[in-house]
Amino acid sequence: MIAPVGPNATVAAGSVGSTETRHVDLPRPVPLDCGRELHPVRIAYETYGVLSPERDNVILVCHALSGDAHAAGLASTPPEAGTRDGFAAEARDGAAGKALGWWDGMIGPGKAFDTDRFFVVSSNVLGGCRGTTGPSSTDPATGAPYGTDFPVITVADMVRAQRALLDELGITRLAAVAGGSLGGMQALQWAVRYPDQVDAIVVIASTPALHPQGVAWNAIARDAIMRDPAWQGGHYHGTGRQPDAGMGVARMVGHITYLSAPALEDRFGRRLQFADDIRHTITEPEFEVESYLRHQADTFVKRFDANTYLYTSRALTYFDLAREHGGGSLDRALGGVLARTLLIAFSSDWLYPPAASEQIAASLRALGKPVEYHLIEAPHGHDSFLLEEARQTPVIRHFLTGAGADSSTPRKRHE
Amino acid sequence: MIAPVGPNATVAAGSVGSTETRHVDLPRPVPLDCGRELHPVRIAYETYGVLSPERDNVILVCHALSGDAHAAGLASTPPEAGTRDGFAAEARDGAAGKALGWWDGMIGPGKAFDTDRFFVVSSNVLGGCRGTTGPSSTDPATGAPYGTDFPVITVADMVRAQRALLDELGITRLAAVAGGSLGGMQALQWAVRYPDQVDAIVVIASTPALHPQGVAWNAIARDAIMRDPAWQGGHYHGTGRQPDAGMGVARMVGHITYLSAPALEDRFGRRLQFADDIRHTITEPEFEVESYLRHQADTFVKRFDANTYLYTSRALTYFDLAREHGGGSLDRALGGVLARTLLIAFSSDWLYPPAASEQIAASLRALGKPVEYHLIEAPHGHDSFLLEEARQTPVIRHFLTGAGADSSTPRKRHE
Repeated sequence: MIAPVGPNATVAAGSVGSTETRHVDLPRPVPLDCGRELHPVRIAYETYGVLSPERDNVILVCHALSGDAHAAGLASTPPEAGTRDGFAAEARDGAAGKALGWWDGMIGPGKAFDTDRFFVVSSNVLGGCRGTTGPSSTDPATGAPYGTDFPVITVADMVRAQRALLDELGITRLAAVAGGSLGGMQALQWAVRYPDQVDAIVVIASTPALHPQGVAWNAIARDAIMRDPAWQGGHYHGTGRQPDAGMGVARMVGHITYLSAPALEDRFGRRLQFADDIRHTITEPEFEVESYLRHQADTFVKRFDANTYLYTSRALTYFDLAREHGGGSLDRALGGVLARTLLIAFSSDWLYPPAASEQIAASLRALGKPVEYHLIEAPHGHDSFLLEEARQTPVIRHFLTGAGADSSTPRKRHE
Repeated sequence: MIAPVGPNATVAAGSVGSTETRHVDLPRPVPLDCGRELHPVRIAYETYGVLSPERDNVILVCHALSGDAHAAGLASTPPEAGTRDGFAAEARDGAAGKALGWWDGMIGPGKAFDTDRFFVVSSNVLGGCRGTTGPSSTDPATGAPYGTDFPVITVADMVRAQRALLDELGITRLAAVAGGSLGGMQALQWAVRYPDQVDAIVVIASTPALHPQGVAWNAIARDAIMRDPAWQGGHYHGTGRQPDAGMGVARMVGHITYLSAPALEDRFGRRLQFADDIRHTITEPEFEVESYLRHQADTFVKRFDANTYLYTSRALTYFDLAREHGGGSLDRALGGVLARTLLIAFSSDWLYPPAASEQIAASLRALGKPVEYHLIEAPHGHDSFLLEEARQTPVIRHFLTGAGADSSTPRKRHE
């Protein structure tokens, strides 16, 4: 594929190639918003591109609710299961059983986050289940998995853990922090919490605080898990049972909120599974969209931990820049931001609607801070941030021109 | 309250008073779309107003997913639990433990469906759990509740059962059939199936076929119930367990789809349950909207049967006028309609969006049939059909002028 990236861009949009998830054990406990500290903490991460000698070309990429550290390239070891979501996942199955990263279309030589220039770091969030310490990790106090004894995590905690990871990697400053959805919240949190360490943030399909309907959807998804008797109060590890039924429902709810009604209309309509008529069944799927949802549910439970879902969902509903950093005022919360800000929203995204990005843009503008806002007309709903790569790419590349490393001297990758 | 009903209207909007749900046992089996017949069939119904000697002033009112026959007035016996939904229910708790009907604001002397003129009949749908034969009724073949041995019901089957009920009441023609949501589907089905027996239909917040996102929400709600181990394949009656956990999730999903995002914003915002800060909890509600949802779930499971939810939800997703009656063409499906049609939609209704009503209106207009379409700007989402009584009233009263009984001679109620 040729990325439409403007006159100065490199040409072929390549791949970062084979990648490997590495791990760092943090030397110190991570202090948490809830008042507890977490130790030990292991962080799973991947990197793409080459760190400049000045260490000034680092972009931290942050993942969304069900993501992981494997953002780009082909996993060098066959993964337990795919790590990407919905439509995007289907469009991108890797070759030979190797999974493509969840943002592979955006990270690589010549891509939006150009690994010829930037050193991209991607880590699994604190509380995760894909290599970073989370509820399924061993609680040193008991020798058993934490389960719901794991401390409640916030987006600020996730960012603290990322800061500690970067310390271990010898990285002080970030040329940019970028992410969509929950990933965008992390980018915002970076700019607010570590203003002198972040040159720019790229906040895609995100919000300064999830709207009440989004809070509700997340609450329903979590309740579906917790009402499953197999959840067992969160201590299902080692019992031979896990809340797959509830997780499936949570996933189906999430999935529909990630898509738009017109996208479902285009893709499924009211097409029936069998021939041209209904079979009069309560238990079996009749419509293609029903069958699709069940498939999504079945696939998801194989690759994702239910408690991590609960903790991550809770973190993203808690996130509230104005409440946490501005005494209720978004202007005050953003008052200390030094990073240049790029905001991208999608017209059909009703979970993280354009209005949320516009609120951030308005606030930063009122504060006289550098901000760019792009509304992309796209039909896919919230999932657009994973799908509309071609249209995000020129916007992000242009925004990152001059960021961090000198853009006139692309760094080639050394294998 | 004074209903804003124009110059010729009666004045005070009164109540139909105390009401009682009665029952009819149908003398003949009801043939069903699935090929089976159902027998015996009992129908629960209420009536309001006085049947004219000419029997020409009958309005059949049809309820939505979780409704029942008690549409107006105060139930003469304390109900097991409230029968109305969400915001509407809260606004309308009856006095002294007696439940107000689910459409009490619309049915009564001087109201939209004016019982000074019309004889209003309201029945619980086939497959229901509030007095009409449904999955919790006794299967004569086994002596035990049907459970999922109950035949799969369609909207057409519901209407067949209503036709049979009216036969028993000695009613041949209907001045109007009216309903919102699933109730509107029944009204449409009446006009298509019995064109020479219906003078007018009032179709509110409804659709000729639920859009795929609505199909998906219903599938998720049903799956939440069926994935609950307490559902036991539908044979939970008599086991001491029932799928309250899954039903709660189904209800929460439904509830959010009945409201609009702005309505949630207005009513709950991101207000926390306790003081001004979060408590860092996974299991407890933190936001008011979370607590509200759990309350809705807990209330609903006490009054509604899970299998009836499954069957009714399935019926409304199946409903597809074009597929069932027009070989895929809505125009063809509506080609035989003789009834005058009133369509009302609400701007913020995203489950039964205005576009669906507009599709019906366009089709009827193209066929040269009498149709009125009113789009009401209202913020409450799909629930508007239960809440926006004052604005629907003049539209409906005007539409019904001259319908059935002569409007110049209001009939007084005889107690």
